[in-house]
Amino acid sequence: MKNLRIVMAQQGFEIGDIFGNVQKIIQLAKQAFDEQQAEMVVFSELCLIGYPPEDLLLRPSLKNRVDQAIEQLLKADLPCAIVIGLPLFKEGQLFNGAMCINDQKIVHQYHKQCLPNYQVFDEKRYFEHGEQSSVFDFNGVSFSILICEDIWFDQPIAQAKELGAQCILALNASPFHLGRAAQRVEQVQNIAKQNAIPVLYVNGHYAQDELVFDGASFVVNQQGECVQTCVEFEDVMSAVDLAVEGNNLSIGETNQTSWLPVMESLHQALVLGLKSYVNKNGFPGIVLGLSGGIDSGLSLAIAVDALGADRVHAVMMPFAYTSEMSIADAKEQADLLGVKFDIVPIVDVFEASFKTLQPVLNLDEPGVTEQNLQARIRGLMLMAISNKTGSMVLTTGNKSEMAVGYATLYGDMCGGYNALKDVPKTLVFELSRFLNTIKPMIPSRVIERPPSAELAPDQKDEDSLPPYDILDAIIEHYVEHDLSADAICAKGFDKETVYWVCKQIDRNEYKRRQAAEGVRITPRGFGRDRRYPITHKWLPGD
Amino acid sequence: MKNLRIVMAQQGFEIGDIFGNVQKIIQLAKQAFDEQQAEMVVFSELCLIGYPPEDLLLRPSLKNRVDQAIEQLLKADLPCAIVIGLPLFKEGQLFNGAMCINDQKIVHQYHKQCLPNYQVFDEKRYFEHGEQSSVFDFNGVSFSILICEDIWFDQPIAQAKELGAQCILALNASPFHLGRAAQRVEQVQNIAKQNAIPVLYVNGHYAQDELVFDGASFVVNQQGECVQTCVEFEDVMSAVDLAVEGNNLSIGETNQTSWLPVMESLHQALVLGLKSYVNKNGFPGIVLGLSGGIDSGLSLAIAVDALGADRVHAVMMPFAYTSEMSIADAKEQADLLGVKFDIVPIVDVFEASFKTLQPVLNLDEPGVTEQNLQARIRGLMLMAISNKTGSMVLTTGNKSEMAVGYATLYGDMCGGYNALKDVPKTLVFELSRFLNTIKPMIPSRVIERPPSAELAPDQKDEDSLPPYDILDAIIEHYVEHDLSADAICAKGFDKETVYWVCKQIDRNEYKRRQAAEGVRITPRGFGRDRRYPITHKWLPGD
Repeated sequence: MKNLRIVMAQQGFEIGDIFGNVQKIIQLAKQAFDEQQAEMVVFSELCLIGYPPEDLLLRPSLKNRVDQAIEQLLKADLPCAIVIGLPLFKEGQLFNGAMCINDQKIVHQYHKQCLPNYQVFDEKRYFEHGEQSSVFDFNGVSFSILICEDIWFDQPIAQAKELGAQCILALNASPFHLGRAAQRVEQVQNIAKQNAIPVLYVNGHYAQDELVFDGASFVVNQQGECVQTCVEFEDVMSAVDLAVEGNNLSIGETNQTSWLPVMESLHQALVLGLKSYVNKNGFPGIVLGLSGGIDSGLSLAIAVDALGADRVHAVMMPFAYTSEMSIADAKEQADLLGVKFDIVPIVDVFEASFKTLQPVLNLDEPGVTEQNLQARIRGLMLMAISNKTGSMVLTTGNKSEMAVGYATLYGDMCGGYNALKDVPKTLVFELSRFLNTIKPMIPSRVIERPPSAELAPDQKDEDSLPPYDILDAIIEHYVEHDLSADAICAKGFDKETVYWVCKQIDRNEYKRRQAAEGVRITPRGFGRDRRYPITHKWLPGD
Repeated sequence: MKNLRIVMAQQGFEIGDIFGNVQKIIQLAKQAFDEQQAEMVVFSELCLIGYPPEDLLLRPSLKNRVDQAIEQLLKADLPCAIVIGLPLFKEGQLFNGAMCINDQKIVHQYHKQCLPNYQVFDEKRYFEHGEQSSVFDFNGVSFSILICEDIWFDQPIAQAKELGAQCILALNASPFHLGRAAQRVEQVQNIAKQNAIPVLYVNGHYAQDELVFDGASFVVNQQGECVQTCVEFEDVMSAVDLAVEGNNLSIGETNQTSWLPVMESLHQALVLGLKSYVNKNGFPGIVLGLSGGIDSGLSLAIAVDALGADRVHAVMMPFAYTSEMSIADAKEQADLLGVKFDIVPIVDVFEASFKTLQPVLNLDEPGVTEQNLQARIRGLMLMAISNKTGSMVLTTGNKSEMAVGYATLYGDMCGGYNALKDVPKTLVFELSRFLNTIKPMIPSRVIERPPSAELAPDQKDEDSLPPYDILDAIIEHYVEHDLSADAICAKGFDKETVYWVCKQIDRNEYKRRQAAEGVRITPRGFGRDRRYPITHKWLPGD
């Protein structure tokens, strides 16, 4: 009997930075050999260029750069084998590929067979699909590489097994959403058991624009048991020992842990998404409008976790309808978290704007115009601070608001990134309460008082919107599950409410189209997941 | 010998409005029979649901609605045959399909074989592809239907010919870009001649968000001669007479006209795009900031052509750096075109903003912050007018500005739509001069003075940007032709300039992501054509 040690590299890679990624791959392989006696290191899907590279894949120098990168890897004198994901060219066609390099030679190449072209994925825009599974021998064991989507279908793994594969190396760039880690394991358990073959499932750990890759890599043995897991939301180099005896291959059970509870994984995803966006785009920090409400309160807490208090600047911008309570709560939270805090009253700018507009508009009866004016003046102030300090404005609208357009374009929607973009209001509450159980982050009055935009006297969100538990349920049915309005009514919701919500979702596509990017945490966010026309006449009815 | 009369319906259809489109199809078919003695009317690709329907194709009631629509068409007792494009379901799969209905029966169905999934197209996100061409007999003639992309490849038409087709009915939703009409004809001429088969090429005429469908339908005979064309940018019902003698089929040359010159087609496209967006989304009109500069001057002219002077409101918002000349020119153009004109000075709001921000920021040395403040206060004013009047704000940044980010987010970028979004500055000049040759639309000083944002004393665009002819050439090479920076330098451009431009294009993706929709007029606009990550480290070099 012999032992073969493979290290799964759950790591982050920079989009487009092919040569930086090469250096990282080399360094990690050396380290895995030195510290963990790795014989092979397996990386994640398209680690050479980062995932998703989008239209960078259409740049004409891609092939040259990939060829150079392969040269560098071959010359690097790696102490162990590596399996990497990369764009592969063959006869003028581009594939989502993988390659095993050993002893300064390319010992195997593979082309992804199943190309996802739904939800957030556009792989058929770029890649041709491979035609078959294949195997290669490494130290007497027969391996087959599969890439992400390949593992969700029967044919590629069955064919690999048929070709004599003893172990599947599954390279992934599988984006996070709530509950996704457990789903992946369950699906792989089924398919591994069915084909009686172990699977090493390696996922990346990083965030890219709206997508978060949570890692959560794992190993399933040929009995379909999950025998090893990698901690979510961390860089991990995880050693897997394959015990080989003739044709038999077994994997011992090692550090198997359970996945994070929902609230914790949600928090981690929001922190990672925000941190990556701010850092990778070179912002010194963020500035946000702290209203004394729960959305900005939670956003502040997340920003402090993501960047540290010294990179966060909170600005309270009171006006006539801002309650004393809001000012006090904002100050309390800023003090609690130790962030820079300014109070910038907007009354003078509002009055000047009002007077300036008076000759053109009849502003005698206050309405939406005046409310939006307040929100936009706040945006104006924050953007000026951003311009002068270089800090990115963090916008704080939640998914419920983004859905029905309860937000002011160029007002509270100003900002470079939105941690809460895909978080429904009910989940905003739940997460805020959860964070406070760990340590005090958000004053409890901010969480418990009825939500208000404070843009008019005694305004409450529920004057304009259905109660959030109902609103969020309807949004989930309509957006995530694609139910029709009638089908939602049939679930017992009030017809008028359902139709109102669905109509608002449809007609506010124009606002969302100009909204900041934000972390995707559900199976269907409002980003690249949901591609609706702005102009259309589809009725939500049946 | 007998004659068969087919009418090509170059028409517009509303996205998602299946039942409205059914009524339009029925009405047009009856009219074509009554007025033109049509035996068959051929409509454009996916006319039943409009193109592109995007994720509306994922709605669960799609199949029901399509089935009902087909029922309505079968029951309508149409006086002639129709060939329509529609989503077709077969065994749980969705196809981009077409159908011939005659005598209240479905006499033929076809599934599109070649699905475009590049540029602005995402058809593999929704559709399975058909496996083969097919033919059907109508009044003794053997027809084959092909759909859009099918006609750009050899196999589908060759197979149709092999199956005995005597005539191709090509249903299209082919978006406009400059010079596209002539390209289409040339390609179809080649393929028709090669296969010795006539092609009736029917395109839609409408606009949808960023896409304009220019019509420009035509007929090519089996010798590859273009024998008939439909006027671009108009609804047309064009009769085609097929003379049939045994197996021979010939098409007489009829109203063949030449395509519009570039400037005229550009103007038509911008007018159609803007008009459709404003009208279909139910805005009473538009409001725009008229600065005395050429971008807003040209936008105003286009808006008046699209909507009529009484639906257009121009607002001049002077500040300390606004020249008297700008105010005079803005007023002159507004008077010339007869639009509502207001002057709203922003000085008071600027001063109030400045004072309000002073305690937080050091604004002693004026810089970008103060410039952006001016632009954003103008956005604030326009949005307030929009809120109060319901008019849509028309934003006016050209493609050169959108490329390098020479625009203020939430400032002059405020707006629902942008007629000039894909028009490079050099083309802005050319189009402005062209329009003035037809009738005076833009004061000549607006066109001839050096461009300036007037956000600082004696500011000129060319203080911050390369000369526009150089800038636009670099943008075209980098964006439309995907050349690398080095390849552009090799064409004789200054290296520093090229690298600066490419870098600006890359880093301003975040601004464009929050920009308004606008008409696409080049083969690669900044909309769904070009899907770049915001966060990436690809260097433009080689």
